[in-house]
Amino acid sequence: MTGRPATAPGAGAGTRTARDAANARAVARLVEARPVLETVAPAAEVVPGMTSRTILLSGPPMPWQRYEGGQRRAVIGAALHEGLARDEAEADALLADGTIALRPSHDHATVGSLTGVCTASMPVAVVRDETSGRYAFCRMNEGPDRASLTFGVWDDGVDTRLRHVRDVVSPALAEALDRMGGLPLGPLIRRALTMGDDLHSRHKAAAAMLRSAVLDAVLDLSHNGVTERHRALAAYLRSAEYLFLHFVMAAAKAAADSASGVPGSTLVTAMNLNEKEFGLRVSGLGDRWFTAPLPPVSTLRGRLYDGWTTDDLAYVGGESLITETVGLGGMAAAAAMPLQDHSAGTPREMLRLTERMYRITLREHPDHRIPALAYRGTPCGIDVTRVAETGIVPAIHLGATLRDGGHAGAVLFHPPLEPFRQAARLLSAPSAGTPPTTA
Amino acid sequence: MTGRPATAPGAGAGTRTARDAANARAVARLVEARPVLETVAPAAEVVPGMTSRTILLSGPPMPWQRYEGGQRRAVIGAALHEGLARDEAEADALLADGTIALRPSHDHATVGSLTGVCTASMPVAVVRDETSGRYAFCRMNEGPDRASLTFGVWDDGVDTRLRHVRDVVSPALAEALDRMGGLPLGPLIRRALTMGDDLHSRHKAAAAMLRSAVLDAVLDLSHNGVTERHRALAAYLRSAEYLFLHFVMAAAKAAADSASGVPGSTLVTAMNLNEKEFGLRVSGLGDRWFTAPLPPVSTLRGRLYDGWTTDDLAYVGGESLITETVGLGGMAAAAAMPLQDHSAGTPREMLRLTERMYRITLREHPDHRIPALAYRGTPCGIDVTRVAETGIVPAIHLGATLRDGGHAGAVLFHPPLEPFRQAARLLSAPSAGTPPTTA
Repeated sequence: MTGRPATAPGAGAGTRTARDAANARAVARLVEARPVLETVAPAAEVVPGMTSRTILLSGPPMPWQRYEGGQRRAVIGAALHEGLARDEAEADALLADGTIALRPSHDHATVGSLTGVCTASMPVAVVRDETSGRYAFCRMNEGPDRASLTFGVWDDGVDTRLRHVRDVVSPALAEALDRMGGLPLGPLIRRALTMGDDLHSRHKAAAAMLRSAVLDAVLDLSHNGVTERHRALAAYLRSAEYLFLHFVMAAAKAAADSASGVPGSTLVTAMNLNEKEFGLRVSGLGDRWFTAPLPPVSTLRGRLYDGWTTDDLAYVGGESLITETVGLGGMAAAAAMPLQDHSAGTPREMLRLTERMYRITLREHPDHRIPALAYRGTPCGIDVTRVAETGIVPAIHLGATLRDGGHAGAVLFHPPLEPFRQAARLLSAPSAGTPPTTA
Repeated sequence: MTGRPATAPGAGAGTRTARDAANARAVARLVEARPVLETVAPAAEVVPGMTSRTILLSGPPMPWQRYEGGQRRAVIGAALHEGLARDEAEADALLADGTIALRPSHDHATVGSLTGVCTASMPVAVVRDETSGRYAFCRMNEGPDRASLTFGVWDDGVDTRLRHVRDVVSPALAEALDRMGGLPLGPLIRRALTMGDDLHSRHKAAAAMLRSAVLDAVLDLSHNGVTERHRALAAYLRSAEYLFLHFVMAAAKAAADSASGVPGSTLVTAMNLNEKEFGLRVSGLGDRWFTAPLPPVSTLRGRLYDGWTTDDLAYVGGESLITETVGLGGMAAAAAMPLQDHSAGTPREMLRLTERMYRITLREHPDHRIPALAYRGTPCGIDVTRVAETGIVPAIHLGATLRDGGHAGAVLFHPPLEPFRQAARLLSAPSAGTPPTTA
């Protein structure tokens, strides 16, 4: 605990005490999570509510007609990849009339990277929080190509790579994970935080450890010779730099869902974005989204590839912010000095960034610790009340996408303050404490 | 370059200029080295001057009769392991009369971890500096057991593990390295420095990357099924935490040897210790050792296992200090915050430790960079003149050994100042500039 009392405008001592207790209960579920990557399986087989005509995507819900950029391209591409339409026009019509059901990932125990599209046949990481028993899911990474559905690109190459991950890589990975009896993610996250990873924009250490563990299992599987599928998995592990992100995202979603629905708690349980809006959910207010328009991309800063500037960027959605929701990513910037050019600028500013985050969080994570801060725990559990009071918003390490799609680098993103304020106001009102039904 | 002028008591402007030029030439060989791990092979096949009756060991030369602790136990053990004697008494006699030739590793292009014993049949890492063409060697790591010849223990378990590494693990690793066409170590060192490794006391990131690369090659080798030897290699890679150290040591030795023998250069080209003395060599003075008694073990500080204190420790030799000689280990403490308890104490002190080392070094390494110092290059190339002038000695991360043998943890070691002073004095004398023949 940071030891600072939580206060909110107009909240009396009794409200504060009740809220502190609610928050302690909610944030405990974040820090006590024990995520295990059990397998990789087609979404239709494991994701609750998934149908053959469902397309999941990132962000707070928005009518189909409002999508016009990367998420629109990715959703159409996903429909074509899944064989739900013969061409773009048909896909558009079926999406408009609801024959193809466009659904927010978060309502299906799922989170999506950037555009976040996921269809029935696509493989997802299956992560179980052993503490709560809760499952969460995240679609498999498409590999290292900068052009991908994730980054708002659809073409034949994207389709081919999606099929390769679905038909070759994922079954081999599932076989390896089965051999391993599942892969506990907590120890890898803990170690990677001491090895320069923030677990959102950087996963180099986690990737190396993951790769070693999976290759070991593949060797164990290969009594009768190594198959082409195993070799394809090895090649994928060599190149898919952000694979571990997808596992961490599912792990974070399982933890965040288990912390959701605690009456009176002002803990943030989801943050995401679609093409136009930032959204968040708060534990004590259940599934309700608080949203605000996204800031102009020109206000972002970071390091982009190939001489691109932030003017070349566009928002395409994103839910990897679930890592910040549980105290990783930008919240743990001080653990990831190699990201200094993509984040706060200098090592000193990285330290300050994380130090500032302690002012808006409820706990220091007991296991996720930062060597550069003398092993202080990561700032974990964002409190909308503290954000509203201090005006400090969470620091988010975000993947950057070009206007026409494609991976452009990484940036530091500051979400709008207003949704935090709205949620804080609502929870400090006399009627607060009972979660409303789904908005 | 740090830009600070090198000065020495009594040295005129002409001497300074000549020395600066000599030092620039010598240190360039350190920073331009491109080490490649080519293979692992029995010492007799690759180490120059190695005979069936040679035992290499760490440290400046010392008469056999003076060894009484860990190095004595390790040398006797090595003689028995190699079949050079039937029992301890016979080994002792053969060592005393020179029938078994006890030789300093450094004179055989080799460096040894702690006791540093190496016999003809023992496998050594074969590292070639592609820039200079020079080879250097370091015996294979014995695995994770705290009891080992390295740590001054000899018993049947040690013998069994030595045989396993010699007969099973090393041939499999040689096969994998052959498949890979050798493993360039520079990129791994560079990346590991951004991932919390100092490359002396900590190798966790390097180990994970090494393991992945080797397992990939093993998969490539395994068309007809994975053999028991491959599985044994995989198990060894999972557990031998300090394996990469032995590769870095050989890489550093190749670079340091290529920087040796530059007339007038005050660059340190070797630092080591035996049971009693610290020793160093300087480029402009060739193979001559400058030595001084070791400080009492009670002056060491660090983190030890199982509640041991520094009073339980003993010196058993060591040449892993070759990593500090090329700007890694304690010199790069600021890169390895996870070592704070074993080293300077706090993150701030780790930064200061490395910052202090810039005052006694000739270059900032152009490729080995430290994220926490805004990617400043590691302090590379220790200058005896600067050490003598400032009184600042190199900071060394050293493995700690129990009095009766065995791995006890890690400590920060400060070598005695006197040998640096002696060498500086000698090189500032009017006759300096011509390397004498071997002392």
